Amino acid sequence: MNRYHDIKSAAYEANMQLPELGLVLFTFGNASAADREQGVFAIKPSGVPYAKLRPEDMVVLDFDNNIIEGKLRPSSDTKTHAVLYKHWPAIGGIVHTHSTYATAWAQTQQDIPIFGTTHADHLTVDVPCAPVMSDEMIRGDYEHQTGFQILHALSDRGLSPQEIEMILVANHAPFTWGKTVEKAVYNSAVLEELAKMAYLTLQIRPDCPRLKESLVRKHYDRKHSADAYYGQQ
Amino acid sequence: MNRYHDIKSAAYEANMQLPELGLVLFTFGNASAADREQGVFAIKPSGVPYAKLRPEDMVVLDFDNNIIEGKLRPSSDTKTHAVLYKHWPAIGGIVHTHSTYATAWAQTQQDIPIFGTTHADHLTVDVPCAPVMSDEMIRGDYEHQTGFQILHALSDRGLSPQEIEMILVANHAPFTWGKTVEKAVYNSAVLEELAKMAYLTLQIRPDCPRLKESLVRKHYDRKHSADAYYGQQ
Amino acid sequence: MNRYHDIKSAAYEANMQLPELGLVLFTFGNASAADREQGVFAIKPSGVPYAKLRPEDMVVLDFDNNIIEGKLRPSSDTKTHAVLYKHWPAIGGIVHTHSTYATAWAQTQQDIPIFGTTHADHLTVDVPCAPVMSDEMIRGDYEHQTGFQILHALSDRGLSPQEIEMILVANHAPFTWGKTVEKAVYNSAVLEELAKMAYLTLQIRPDCPRLKESLVRKHYDRKHSADAYYGQQ
Amino acid sequence: MNRYHDIKSAAYEANMQLPELGLVLFTFGNASAADREQGVFAIKPSGVPYAKLRPEDMVVLDFDNNIIEGKLRPSSDTKTHAVLYKHWPAIGGIVHTHSTYATAWAQTQQDIPIFGTTHADHLTVDVPCAPVMSDEMIRGDYEHQTGFQILHALSDRGLSPQEIEMILVANHAPFTWGKTVEKAVYNSAVLEELAKMAYLTLQIRPDCPRLKESLVRKHYDRKHSADAYYGQQ
Repeated sequence: MNRYHDIKSAAYEANMQLPELGLVLFTFGNASAADREQGVFAIKPSGVPYAKLRPEDMVVLDFDNNIIEGKLRPSSDTKTHAVLYKHWPAIGGIVHTHSTYATAWAQTQQDIPIFGTTHADHLTVDVPCAPVMSDEMIRGDYEHQTGFQILHALSDRGLSPQEIEMILVANHAPFTWGKTVEKAVYNSAVLEELAKMAYLTLQIRPDCPRLKESLVRKHYDRKHSADAYYGQQ
Repeated sequence: MNRYHDIKSAAYEANMQLPELGLVLFTFGNASAADREQGVFAIKPSGVPYAKLRPEDMVVLDFDNNIIEGKLRPSSDTKTHAVLYKHWPAIGGIVHTHSTYATAWAQTQQDIPIFGTTHADHLTVDVPCAPVMSDEMIRGDYEHQTGFQILHALSDRGLSPQEIEMILVANHAPFTWGKTVEKAVYNSAVLEELAKMAYLTLQIRPDCPRLKESLVRKHYDRKHSADAYYGQQ
Repeated sequence: MNRYHDIKSAAYEANMQLPELGLVLFTFGNASAADREQGVFAIKPSGVPYAKLRPEDMVVLDFDNNIIEGKLRPSSDTKTHAVLYKHWPAIGGIVHTHSTYATAWAQTQQDIPIFGTTHADHLTVDVPCAPVMSDEMIRGDYEHQTGFQILHALSDRGLSPQEIEMILVANHAPFTWGKTVEKAVYNSAVLEELAKMAYLTLQIRPDCPRLKESLVRKHYDRKHSADAYYGQQ
Repeated sequence: MNRYHDIKSAAYEANMQLPELGLVLFTFGNASAADREQGVFAIKPSGVPYAKLRPEDMVVLDFDNNIIEGKLRPSSDTKTHAVLYKHWPAIGGIVHTHSTYATAWAQTQQDIPIFGTTHADHLTVDVPCAPVMSDEMIRGDYEHQTGFQILHALSDRGLSPQEIEMILVANHAPFTWGKTVEKAVYNSAVLEELAKMAYLTLQIRPDCPRLKESLVRKHYDRKHSADAYYGQQ
């Protein structure tokens, strides 16, 4: 059996879930899964329709973006994935989509405010929006620099990628990640829902206050702290 | 046959309907069914994906939140269900979702105004929004206190749980109930539709007046009064 | 064969299409089909879930609202249908829904402005909204009076039911009709789409001008005039 | 085999995709495919429901709108297709829909601003909206003139139909095209998504700035320039 079988299979399944969850139109998205022991990740090939995608089409690369296996050209966003895997050793999967509401927020260059417990169940702060990239970054190695833009946006705010598993890139679209690619897919769907709820909330009440600290803490901790009591052990 | 067969089966069916009706994403919801004679209710286990749920996974508890039967941990919102069952002897089912439009209204901390007969067919007042909980309630026994927040929101307004079968909890999301869990599911779907219609109404006409009393009364009575003529006898 | 077989079958098929077209939630709608020769119409029974509906469940009434055949109670809106059939001899089908966008417009008590050719393909004027009914009409024979409210709204504006096949009833919801019940169902779906497009148009451009007369005329005539060239002969 | 088999089959498949992609209600759209060697195109017949459409129903015409083959009347918008094929020799397919968000923008008579990279992946400028037609054009040979309105809107702005494959016609709805009819269908779905994202963007942030030039150029070039690295070779 192919030594990359598991990540190719996981990346394939994750990519196939994106249109099913209504998160991508045509080929507007990509998911990848990493194997930390072998120091590689598998990602969707560029521009191949989901209907024609097969597990064996996944392209395997190392974290410096060198192709290790695969006949097809990898997703055009592959360098962004590689940068994130290289600098964040705890993550095992990444998803990029242009899901409608999250992308609209990215286009406004604004964070998604935390308005309710649905949001606090997943993160304790506004969903960060990485600032618009400089012309130098864009004209240079763009997708590589997009990775650094994400890294810096988190570190500038003192946020860790284990706690905050989603971000908007201004003018572009969302990226999410997680311990596994399944979790990254989950986070993409959650982010789209949070983006829609925050949009509706501000349409109904433009001056809506953010969620207060005690509720933020309570909801996050009941799912994520040492004393968590959500889910099965 | 298991003595809790009927409520476990009813709770299972109700939970399975929530994603079908578009009311929950992943596991963001829970439904329970009570057996008043035995003084117990069956509820969804916490964090188990709908696709893997089986009737026998339902957890049975008494109205003081003691587990009577079941190997899995019950929904993290179970204490809220228990409080409502204990204090409202006429209800037989409860549903909690984070459905999109109703949750957006909850995030604004506002009641959903009564604008039309679709609303009046189901309740004669604005859908109440229970106020934001105090820090003491949140840091204490949170889900238990959420139940009391709902009880008080209704009693403070002089509303009875037989007439008003839905509520928003500010910053959180909706809860609905009914004589049966099937009715509670129905109420969750109705609430989401009312929330969407009220949202659109205010977007089109921000100063839209509420429904006048004669129409409120007429529509409610034709479905719910002693002289009701909606439905079959 | 039952002498009402054809209208019962047509009414049944029309009712079943309403949830398929996304126009009704649960039982929030009803469709009827008339037989002008026999002076009767068939309508959905009240409050029966679509999933359980059968053609033989349709109730047959005359245009004075007397039940001619059927064991179930007819839709609570039946009197409105009867009034329209009685006064508008050219129509053969009626549909009532609480479709989301059209109902939101009805709740605002406003006409739906004519903004584009999608609208002009079907009618040359704003979709009329019948005014809020008086307390006397509401407390009296409400559904009967709703029929008259619709008749008067059209005649007060000098509109004919052959040209204008849709209306909103303020605070309530839309009614549509047509030569056949199939056409009335079509009109309900068209109205919902026009309502959504007009909503979006005003959100993007609150001062958006109405469609100019030459375009209104052109689009309507190419589908409906003696020189129509839309569709097959 | 029929000498027009290929374009009739391609036009049929394209038309069938429109309702599947949620771009048309009932018969509110049409797709055509051209055969440049034979100087003809195949288009949907007018007003035939998609469910009853067959490949052999497609009508074949030359670029001066003369019917070459087919028993049915062609789409009422056929003259617009003919004009575009005649003047733009590089295009091989055209699609016209009344998709909801794009049509709402057309009703506002405004271009769709370029706010993000989803847009820049497909075109480097705002989606143009051809101005409202003059009364003379409307009362004359309307659909023929609609074609010229589109041609002029592009040439007035110095845009080429190979670079810009989509347009709104004010008060009417979108038209898209491409080298093949498959590409034109793709463009219709992309346009609807861009229209929705731009709508949401402006609702969240009414003063949202347009995408800056360096990002526009980068995203367009990575898909469309000589150095493109999106997709497979």
